[in-house]
Amino acid sequence: MLVVQKYGGTSVGTLERIEEVAKRVIETKKAGNDVVVVVSAMSGVTNKLIEYAEYFTKEAPCSKDMDMLLSAGERVTSALLAIALNEKGYPAISMSGRAAGIVTDDSHTKARIINIDSTNMRNELDSGKIVVVAGFQGVSEDGFVTTLGRGGSDLSAVAVAGALSADVCEIYTDVDGVYTTDPRIEPKAKKLDRISYDEMLELASMGAKVLQNRSVELAKKLNVNLVTRSSFNNNEGTLITGEANMENNMEQALISGIALDKNQARVTLRGVVDRPGVAASIFKKLAEKNINVDMIIQNTSHEDGTTSLGFTVPQNEMEAARSVVEGTAKSVEIDSDVVKVSVVGVGMKSHSGVASLAFSTLANEGINIQMISTSEIKISMIVAAKYGELAVRALHKAYELDI
Amino acid sequence: MLVVQKYGGTSVGTLERIEEVAKRVIETKKAGNDVVVVVSAMSGVTNKLIEYAEYFTKEAPCSKDMDMLLSAGERVTSALLAIALNEKGYPAISMSGRAAGIVTDDSHTKARIINIDSTNMRNELDSGKIVVVAGFQGVSEDGFVTTLGRGGSDLSAVAVAGALSADVCEIYTDVDGVYTTDPRIEPKAKKLDRISYDEMLELASMGAKVLQNRSVELAKKLNVNLVTRSSFNNNEGTLITGEANMENNMEQALISGIALDKNQARVTLRGVVDRPGVAASIFKKLAEKNINVDMIIQNTSHEDGTTSLGFTVPQNEMEAARSVVEGTAKSVEIDSDVVKVSVVGVGMKSHSGVASLAFSTLANEGINIQMISTSEIKISMIVAAKYGELAVRALHKAYELDI
Repeated sequence: MLVVQKYGGTSVGTLERIEEVAKRVIETKKAGNDVVVVVSAMSGVTNKLIEYAEYFTKEAPCSKDMDMLLSAGERVTSALLAIALNEKGYPAISMSGRAAGIVTDDSHTKARIINIDSTNMRNELDSGKIVVVAGFQGVSEDGFVTTLGRGGSDLSAVAVAGALSADVCEIYTDVDGVYTTDPRIEPKAKKLDRISYDEMLELASMGAKVLQNRSVELAKKLNVNLVTRSSFNNNEGTLITGEANMENNMEQALISGIALDKNQARVTLRGVVDRPGVAASIFKKLAEKNINVDMIIQNTSHEDGTTSLGFTVPQNEMEAARSVVEGTAKSVEIDSDVVKVSVVGVGMKSHSGVASLAFSTLANEGINIQMISTSEIKISMIVAAKYGELAVRALHKAYELDI
Repeated sequence: MLVVQKYGGTSVGTLERIEEVAKRVIETKKAGNDVVVVVSAMSGVTNKLIEYAEYFTKEAPCSKDMDMLLSAGERVTSALLAIALNEKGYPAISMSGRAAGIVTDDSHTKARIINIDSTNMRNELDSGKIVVVAGFQGVSEDGFVTTLGRGGSDLSAVAVAGALSADVCEIYTDVDGVYTTDPRIEPKAKKLDRISYDEMLELASMGAKVLQNRSVELAKKLNVNLVTRSSFNNNEGTLITGEANMENNMEQALISGIALDKNQARVTLRGVVDRPGVAASIFKKLAEKNINVDMIIQNTSHEDGTTSLGFTVPQNEMEAARSVVEGTAKSVEIDSDVVKVSVVGVGMKSHSGVASLAFSTLANEGINIQMISTSEIKISMIVAAKYGELAVRALHKAYELDI
């Protein structure tokens, strides 16, 4: 097997922890695998470098210079881990993004990977070495170091795994994997053995943010088997994979999890003239302001020729949304005292009645559903914020996720 | 003018000092020059990184990994200086060795520069920017970061100045320039306005080590005008240049300086069979052991068909030399209680009697000369260590360097 492992800043936060990571890498190597490791900066290093930059300027510094500055942290960790592995008798070599062949566009601080030339990695793997890649970074075509933005080291790992057709890409964090819901809300939440890319994308807002959607999307695109697990224990993690792999699983539950998203605001426009193109023009304006509209509900027309229109936006884009929609309706009401509860599962594709169980469950608890939107693998409901946790627990039980 | 400036670790040792460096760079830019700055790691950073590596291993770690580790320091400084310059309204861009086009061989930790592709630097200079290059590093042809060894940032600066045909390469340190002798020995020592590459190479062992010979040799090869000066004041430094530029100087003194090298040991072989090839075979063996033989004296043959042979080696190679030569002579005597005093000056090429003044000066002080060797621009003498400083002061006065 070819295994790509990624260790985040907490996992490599001290020299002692880097030593622990080395031991885990060696166990994987000793089990007969080829291993590529992708590492983040030691936790605290990136913030220290940002502080240094802020000494000189409060403004955002030139993005090329910031990439030069911030990419140093991951390079140090990769060198140290390679040194630790070599010392323990396991030949290893550290690689910058450049040496690993990670070529990006020149959108500094948020670069996108264009291509990976895996020649250097292949050569070193073929000679029996463990390859340690500095995460979060690549190189532009004119030779400047670039960084990949938030969650960039995860993205490096997924991209490297894709380029090498690795059997698995393990993302080590400080949590055990993906849970049926946030254990802080429902202590009976269970760790999932496997989940599909699409479900993972839908569950992203659920409790601990295990993975950035950008990494899951890339894994889906490159067909990389992702495993999230903890670097602090030996528990099996959660496999995030394609639906094809899910269907083989006879035990696959109908529903994978219940997500709670507290960062929602509901915007209601009443008395919108019900003419073709009116709704379209409103959403076009919102898009132009880069406001992320999530759920959209349009009621049937009233007798007076007007309709009402509802949608949700992230809370920090609420006021921007207000200034866009004001004047387009008789009244604009914005309520940030709401949450979005979602029931997610590929199983619902082939089962009817999944949605009605959600509705009746909330009704039994006396929770009013303000908005509903459904997709092939998800039912999302907007409810009053105070009912959020209760709704999650009720749905978790109703779909038998606690068994 | 195109000016390359190099700032060492002390000059960029704190964020406050980086700010001071930014001001000096801006003054140079404001004076109408194009400016390329080469920076070292902030003092202390490199040692900290080495400490990290030593946590994992007491042995020398893999040199590729060490290059990855140690090159991070210069990258951080270059990013911070570029950020500081931009903030002050002077557009600047930081470049890694790779971005600056510095291609080296793959002798990691002591790489040699093969070629500099100055395209990126030229483009940014043409657009009016100040270019800030991370010193000490390049990239091998297969894309791994390399470092240039001790004095590597000076070497980066000289190489960049050569590639860009810069008018001058200013090396900023914590001393004002090159002196006629070590001011700690002779307080009347004077700062030289200019000195030739060859003289500088001969004087290298003199007091404060202003520049590694490797950088001076490269400057000579690339015909780069070097200036060493202090970053802590505005004193004019010392121009190190070709002899052609020296000859134009009517005021050029006969002698440039007096050097004292305390790291010498004298090896004397008595009763060496005086056969052709004997001396050659001894020096061949010493060379095979990488022992740096400096001065060599062979006496005329004695009546018994033997001769005596003397040479000097660095003190730390004394015992290695002993084990090589033992058995090749009737007796081997090693004396580390000696120093080498040298009188250096291109002026002596065209003047006779320069050497005799040195000999008579030491004789007048009652100092016995144990060995003598001369070159076109240097007279070196081995004397007992206790006379070292006295010899320097007497010669400094005799050649009127204190006037």
